[in-house]
Amino acid sequence: MAAQKKTTIVLFSGDYDKAMAAYIIANGAAAYDHEVTIFHTFWGLNALRKEHPPELKKGFLESMFAKFMPRGANKLGLSKMNFAGMGPKMIKEVIKKHNALTLPQLIDMAQEQDIKMVACTMTMDLLGLQQAELLDGIEYAGVAAYLGDAEDGNVNLFI
Amino acid sequence: MAAQKKTTIVLFSGDYDKAMAAYIIANGAAAYDHEVTIFHTFWGLNALRKEHPPELKKGFLESMFAKFMPRGANKLGLSKMNFAGMGPKMIKEVIKKHNALTLPQLIDMAQEQDIKMVACTMTMDLLGLQQAELLDGIEYAGVAAYLGDAEDGNVNLFI
Amino acid sequence: MAAQKKTTIVLFSGDYDKAMAAYIIANGAAAYDHEVTIFHTFWGLNALRKEHPPELKKGFLESMFAKFMPRGANKLGLSKMNFAGMGPKMIKEVIKKHNALTLPQLIDMAQEQDIKMVACTMTMDLLGLQQAELLDGIEYAGVAAYLGDAEDGNVNLFI
Repeated sequence: MAAQKKTTIVLFSGDYDKAMAAYIIANGAAAYDHEVTIFHTFWGLNALRKEHPPELKKGFLESMFAKFMPRGANKLGLSKMNFAGMGPKMIKEVIKKHNALTLPQLIDMAQEQDIKMVACTMTMDLLGLQQAELLDGIEYAGVAAYLGDAEDGNVNLFI
Repeated sequence: MAAQKKTTIVLFSGDYDKAMAAYIIANGAAAYDHEVTIFHTFWGLNALRKEHPPELKKGFLESMFAKFMPRGANKLGLSKMNFAGMGPKMIKEVIKKHNALTLPQLIDMAQEQDIKMVACTMTMDLLGLQQAELLDGIEYAGVAAYLGDAEDGNVNLFI
Repeated sequence: MAAQKKTTIVLFSGDYDKAMAAYIIANGAAAYDHEVTIFHTFWGLNALRKEHPPELKKGFLESMFAKFMPRGANKLGLSKMNFAGMGPKMIKEVIKKHNALTLPQLIDMAQEQDIKMVACTMTMDLLGLQQAELLDGIEYAGVAAYLGDAEDGNVNLFI
């Protein structure tokens, strides 16, 4: 019997379009029976933030990061043609027009398909993000866990 | 007999320098007898646009994207030090000076080496790009086809 | 006996945060006994520049690139929230606060762990960088050498 195929994605980017690409590939791979992990690190963690997190105590630098980083998948900007926020609106408009899925919908689908969504604990520390402000049902791990998954991966991408 | 090695590249970026890196690796892999696929998605589709496409009917949003996105490999900007267009001129100057290949030449070489160049149909829809405005001799497919290639790939990159 | 696992990273980016991610993964992989190569190309070469290089003769374009590109790992900007240099200061502050490693420290560790650090000779030519201005103890090679490593790699990333 053939072993199950495996896909891992490091989502480093906090851009709406790059996160969309990551989640489209991940959902596609899960649909083809791959075991899929998305390891969110640095700005990619912003895709996992809740829109309305509980009130949390933070230091000065952590508050600055929390304030200036986009709060959740729906708030991310584009890597190109952002036009001060017009770009994301245009993209969401064409997504609607073509019956494609928005990023929050792609993330929901990933959770339904049991894609392993991991938040990188080391960069959470650096950016001052706490578990209470990230989506429920995700896992927390470091680079060792990522490498454990990736070293047997068929498709490993850094996005 | 060893199986043929396989390289796949997702070209997401529409930057001249990143597209150059993608095509240099792809052409190198083809020279070493790899089977090579470049899957162009999002801004990476702009590398495939014809400089002088036929007149096409487009909706408002599609016309906006078509207008503001660079038309073809020679028009792409740099990911760093773009300096309002000076950067690409400097890069093209040093390419000429060092007898290296420009991006359009690298794309020609890829076609001569039978590299499979694929345009992502889903993002073509989103950005309002039509087959008539992309280079001849390329293929059209979605994420399933990409995964079919990548799951047996030795080298899989997202650029 | 199982063959030694292998990780290769193309470091294309010259951003502090992306280079950090590359070196964290590389050092992690080396700690798990992977054979690790980091292939520095385009702006990723800037991570290898000496802060105080010897005086070198350069042409006009080469002097321009040398002048405007960051000189060494400690001078790199951020891919997001750079805020005209405030972002890197904030990141270095939180690294210090959390006892994490700075990029120059991660590069030192990579050299101690015998990670193969390669500078891409073709892009060195394009950007006018000479061996005398890059760190000691690194290797010089082209895309063929990269592909030779990557085609047997378990984890291959483009960052």
